Amino acid sequence: MKQYSLAIHGGAGAISRKKMTEEKSCAYRAALSDALAEAENILLRGGTALEAVEKAVMNMEDSPLFNAGKGAVYTHEGKHEMDAAIMCGKTLDAGAVSLISTIRNPIVLAKTILERSEHIFLAGEGAMEFAKQENIAFEDAAWFNTEFRFNSLQKAKMKQKIELDHNEREDKYGTVGAVALDQYGNLAAATSTGGMTNKRFGRIGDSPLIGIGTYANNKTCAISCTGKGEDFIRAMVAYDISCLMEYKGFSLEAASRFVVQSKLPVKSGGLIAVDSKGNIVMPFNSEGMYRASVSNSKAKEVFIFQP
Amino acid sequence: MKQYSLAIHGGAGAISRKKMTEEKSCAYRAALSDALAEAENILLRGGTALEAVEKAVMNMEDSPLFNAGKGAVYTHEGKHEMDAAIMCGKTLDAGAVSLISTIRNPIVLAKTILERSEHIFLAGEGAMEFAKQENIAFEDAAWFNTEFRFNSLQKAKMKQKIELDHNEREDKYGTVGAVALDQYGNLAAATSTGGMTNKRFGRIGDSPLIGIGTYANNKTCAISCTGKGEDFIRAMVAYDISCLMEYKGFSLEAASRFVVQSKLPVKSGGLIAVDSKGNIVMPFNSEGMYRASVSNSKAKEVFIFQP
Repeated sequence: MKQYSLAIHGGAGAISRKKMTEEKSCAYRAALSDALAEAENILLRGGTALEAVEKAVMNMEDSPLFNAGKGAVYTHEGKHEMDAAIMCGKTLDAGAVSLISTIRNPIVLAKTILERSEHIFLAGEGAMEFAKQENIAFEDAAWFNTEFRFNSLQKAKMKQKIELDHNEREDKYGTVGAVALDQYGNLAAATSTGGMTNKRFGRIGDSPLIGIGTYANNKTCAISCTGKGEDFIRAMVAYDISCLMEYKGFSLEAASRFVVQSKLPVKSGGLIAVDSKGNIVMPFNSEGMYRASVSNSKAKEVFIFQP
Repeated sequence: MKQYSLAIHGGAGAISRKKMTEEKSCAYRAALSDALAEAENILLRGGTALEAVEKAVMNMEDSPLFNAGKGAVYTHEGKHEMDAAIMCGKTLDAGAVSLISTIRNPIVLAKTILERSEHIFLAGEGAMEFAKQENIAFEDAAWFNTEFRFNSLQKAKMKQKIELDHNEREDKYGTVGAVALDQYGNLAAATSTGGMTNKRFGRIGDSPLIGIGTYANNKTCAISCTGKGEDFIRAMVAYDISCLMEYKGFSLEAASRFVVQSKLPVKSGGLIAVDSKGNIVMPFNSEGMYRASVSNSKAKEVFIFQP
């Protein structure tokens, strides 16, 4: 059997070991396992890396546990504004969306842009008009309502600050993502996020930005980031790792470690990445990062805190 | 006198030598000279690179000749949707806006985000709300009306296609930009665009994307791009040049030439860049690029076609 590798994340941040109950930990682990298994199944059946990362992200978007899709946090105005991006390492084609609402799976819209639009990045009302033309699934705004997230908004408003919260104060940087190498040697990356609780002003983070929160290139690696978007933009995280591999000959492991440890401020977040040989890394400099990985040569692993 | 360098562009594309009248050529040259002189004046008086690139771009935004600010092209809906970004090479702070309208100088809003927002990238209605709070100058939608651009939209609609036109079919990729090195050794880059005639779906091009259309880093260089945005996104143009310098030891000239000639499809567009030693390059692979440069050691130059 040829090499395949797959990694997913469900956000990084100040996930407190103390506050993490056994019940909550089990729920997250089960959700990660489920998303991983569905995507692995695609790779096992001969599907592409692009299909696998889309499926993993869709699965997590449909879970209320993660800050993406159904579980997206509330903006200041009480809406859900979501961003997503996907990239194919073989063709360098990409699709990205920002500031969309009521679309059930933003990652499906991003993949449709990759496949069917001459553009790469669509945003706001225009992106939703494109989604309608392409028969992308919408949901009522009420579908995205979760009591838990609504309470987070009220708390954030009381504190009069913008929270990058995903899980109260326990998971500051909620995002989901997936990276994969398929049996054909192709890489792909996908990321989806609901942004920041109480955010205003149409803020766009790193998730939908090609080369920052999401990047794939068969020459080097596929990457999906999660964390404080502005830190990731300043450091050009995903493409920087790719360039350290391509131009300085760094391994994926050395390049990722260097960028996370030396170019990002402490507690910014983390990333998952896979290279063209199937190596997987999942470094982060926050307290925790929901993550899981599997390959044809290594059994499934699911982690929340530092190993 | 310490080194300072400055370069500006007013868009690249299929600028036909045959169709370029003496009158039109003079008008563009005068507008470029004017923007260059105003920005150089700032550098000469001890102003910063960030102030100089903002001023050069503001000046071109106020001219109806360039596809930015007043001269912005019409979207499919007959509106003007503008994007801009600015970055400081010393701090790596940046400000970017996308899909805004009725703001006289999008680059001023981008600089205000750099200086006064905890975020980097704001878009749409939210960005305009922030602009109002910050007392950024608005103009009536009518202020952006130009007969010439309106006629371009009608023609494009008749052809039922999206045009990256700036100047009928003569300047496909209209954008303005500036890069500078100031006497304190700091670099800055700024870019502003009105996008594509007849564009739909809230398309975001490369101009407001940090590391793609706009980038500055004192370690390497400052860059502003102009051209077919999707090509520039796939190639991660600005940060790729920076990485070739930082990680492979390429000169600015070698890095820029390599990226424009080897990573961009033919006729994609071009860029202007200045490095920390004050070297200026202005490569492009389209027929022409409106551009001008000056430094303390080199007299003003204004070009439209290949030299």
